[in-house]
Amino acid sequence: MASPGSLRYASGMTKPILCVGALTMDTIFLLEALPGGPGKFLPLDAVEVAEGMAAAQAASIARLGGDVALWASAGDDAIGDRLIAQISAEGVDCSRVRRVPGARSGFSTIFMDRRGERMIVPKYDADLMAPPATAPDLSGFAAVMTDVRWPGAAELALLAAREAGIPGILDADVGPREVIQRLVGLASHVVASEGGAALVTGANTPQQSAERLSSGHAGFFAVTAGEKGCWWGSGGTVRHTPAPQIEAIDTLAAGDVFHGAFAVGLVEGWQMSETIAFASAAAALKCTRFGGRLGAPTRPEVEAFLAR
Amino acid sequence: MASPGSLRYASGMTKPILCVGALTMDTIFLLEALPGGPGKFLPLDAVEVAEGMAAAQAASIARLGGDVALWASAGDDAIGDRLIAQISAEGVDCSRVRRVPGARSGFSTIFMDRRGERMIVPKYDADLMAPPATAPDLSGFAAVMTDVRWPGAAELALLAAREAGIPGILDADVGPREVIQRLVGLASHVVASEGGAALVTGANTPQQSAERLSSGHAGFFAVTAGEKGCWWGSGGTVRHTPAPQIEAIDTLAAGDVFHGAFAVGLVEGWQMSETIAFASAAAALKCTRFGGRLGAPTRPEVEAFLAR
Repeated sequence: MASPGSLRYASGMTKPILCVGALTMDTIFLLEALPGGPGKFLPLDAVEVAEGMAAAQAASIARLGGDVALWASAGDDAIGDRLIAQISAEGVDCSRVRRVPGARSGFSTIFMDRRGERMIVPKYDADLMAPPATAPDLSGFAAVMTDVRWPGAAELALLAAREAGIPGILDADVGPREVIQRLVGLASHVVASEGGAALVTGANTPQQSAERLSSGHAGFFAVTAGEKGCWWGSGGTVRHTPAPQIEAIDTLAAGDVFHGAFAVGLVEGWQMSETIAFASAAAALKCTRFGGRLGAPTRPEVEAFLAR
Repeated sequence: MASPGSLRYASGMTKPILCVGALTMDTIFLLEALPGGPGKFLPLDAVEVAEGMAAAQAASIARLGGDVALWASAGDDAIGDRLIAQISAEGVDCSRVRRVPGARSGFSTIFMDRRGERMIVPKYDADLMAPPATAPDLSGFAAVMTDVRWPGAAELALLAAREAGIPGILDADVGPREVIQRLVGLASHVVASEGGAALVTGANTPQQSAERLSSGHAGFFAVTAGEKGCWWGSGGTVRHTPAPQIEAIDTLAAGDVFHGAFAVGLVEGWQMSETIAFASAAAALKCTRFGGRLGAPTRPEVEAFLAR
């Protein structure tokens, strides 16, 4: 089995991953400091970027050389056109994106300071998140990755993945607790954020969350905790992989980059320790760059980072 | 001379107004309260709206039945396409809008609370505001209206208006003091915000600003001061028109609506007292509606409001 860092990985996968969930237009302003009250505040930088968990994961997979499609929900408005154009331009197959007549596409503004503190104001149309009528056709897919933002679609996709005998990955980020718990039970691979894991397990630390998941979840689990690293395992064992030391300037979408890289390693059949190290490196690299998921690295960049 | 409120005004103008200056995409979030620190904050409402002073003025003129064109500067990006599409859809002739190759269109986010307090974070590309190479062709125009956001264009347009013998109106809002002062000297009609007037005159109150303008400015002047009303005059006299009593929920672009209505009255040849009353009513109506310049009223709405 090849290791990340070897050029053998440049060949990429043969079967695509289906990412299921959020697609929103984020406007991100980098500020010296967050506004403390009314007034006009000039940003150091600003970008408008199509992301949302599933979309950011899909774009990250594409940058890592993976074959990937997105199943998400957008309005039939101008923002929806740009969302699809921007994610398609990353090499993601957006032909499955659902356009909801009369609905407005999701968008948000994020004020971010140099320390990574954020004010987020999102606007999502409830109609966008209505459950889909039918399960996705997974023939030809290597894996499914879901988030907690479009629960009806995630549930159908995880059930279909189980039926098809392919990995069903859940990004268990913070969301309604009953949603996360239902989806955790359907996923073969759960990769949770520190906050999401704490919601599900009631634990106080990521390690404790991982220990509880190791006994409570039948499949693979991981708990990502930023600079503290990642606790992961399956079948009762818990291992820890430290995070690379970097100077973080923008952690937005770092979790999505981790998930994208994780899915790439999984479907390419790497050893899990190598997959986690690769995903940790990809997420760390993203944190060194402003612009949410626009900072997602390519595979050669991650390989060069790991080879330091 | 007909008065606002009479149906005779429905016939509108025969010659167009040229609005010169800012064009930006604003995303406006209405919040229960402004964010006090990091976190996620769900808005009560949100809109994405093409505005900026000149563009909002032009769209307001169109809603009031006026014939109007916009001379502004946008990037050759997707935001620029939407800016032009949205302002064109209001009935504004956008054929003169300059697209700057390689520049990014201006955009901003505005967090607004129920009392109208705002956090504004704008992002403007300096390349956008480079002075134009040539003066506009004003043949066929009834008047020019300029703002302080694109000073090179405003200067050329005000000089050309003087040359053509048509009104050259300046929206003297807050901006670099030397810019405002230079443009004030070129305009036949100065309509200043309270803050802009204070910058130019050094006065402490809008009335005092108006008194100083009445002796220092050769043409017409007005100082708008929100709920305190408007001080205006020419040739040494100062008059005051009170503001209609309304419950303001969004004052964003109210000044632009006032300016648009002012220009309509001016080119239609109304008595100045009627023009100021009409503009005050239009601006007040706007303040009762969320969404920046999207709240600009139509002429029948202003007439109905004045007829109360």
